[in-house]
Amino acid sequence: MPKFDGSGLLTAVAVDHLTGRILMLAHMDQAALDKTVETGFAHFHSRSRGRLWMKGESSGHVLEVREIRVDCDQDAIELRVAARGPACHTLAVSCFYRRLEQDGHLVRVND
Amino acid sequence: MPKFDGSGLLTAVAVDHLTGRILMLAHMDQAALDKTVETGFAHFHSRSRGRLWMKGESSGHVLEVREIRVDCDQDAIELRVAARGPACHTLAVSCFYRRLEQDGHLVRVND
Repeated sequence: MPKFDGSGLLTAVAVDHLTGRILMLAHMDQAALDKTVETGFAHFHSRSRGRLWMKGESSGHVLEVREIRVDCDQDAIELRVAARGPACHTLAVSCFYRRLEQDGHLVRVND
Repeated sequence: MPKFDGSGLLTAVAVDHLTGRILMLAHMDQAALDKTVETGFAHFHSRSRGRLWMKGESSGHVLEVREIRVDCDQDAIELRVAARGPACHTLAVSCFYRRLEQDGHLVRVND
């Protein structure tokens, strides 16, 4: 435990440790989870690049992990983090910055 | 958009619409997303059962969707919900009710 799926991955959701606000979602393999626990900084497995990466390794916008939670069936984890900068590569605070409207349009929101 | 993965799924994270607290994580295919938008209640695709289900269809603990957010690369969504009962099938408020300790143990927490 935690349990990794057929591709050796689990889903990780980073949330602000003070507000609970969801910041970003990514995937971890065993190596990323180990590195996260060992260093205290969020590491993920990039499915597109097929490699381990530390969030913020190029931007400096790292996620300092304060607590890790595991869900009931142990295939997803919540990272409670202190974000050093915007979590999103677009420089938004959170990657979830657009609202899906009833008609299918996306509207940018600021909270 | 949103974009579904090779299995036709995206990841959906349900959070409390008032507090932002993460409640549960599940997957949606196009049908589940359509049904969610159409009815206002969270529907998912069960990977184990291979079918559409409405969260709370047997327990009554439905998730009333107040807002849907899409992430930057459009393969994950945030459902801002009013939960009618515990979100977790274990009757915990959130599925993320255990903390992963440094030594690898899981500790049940109440917040």
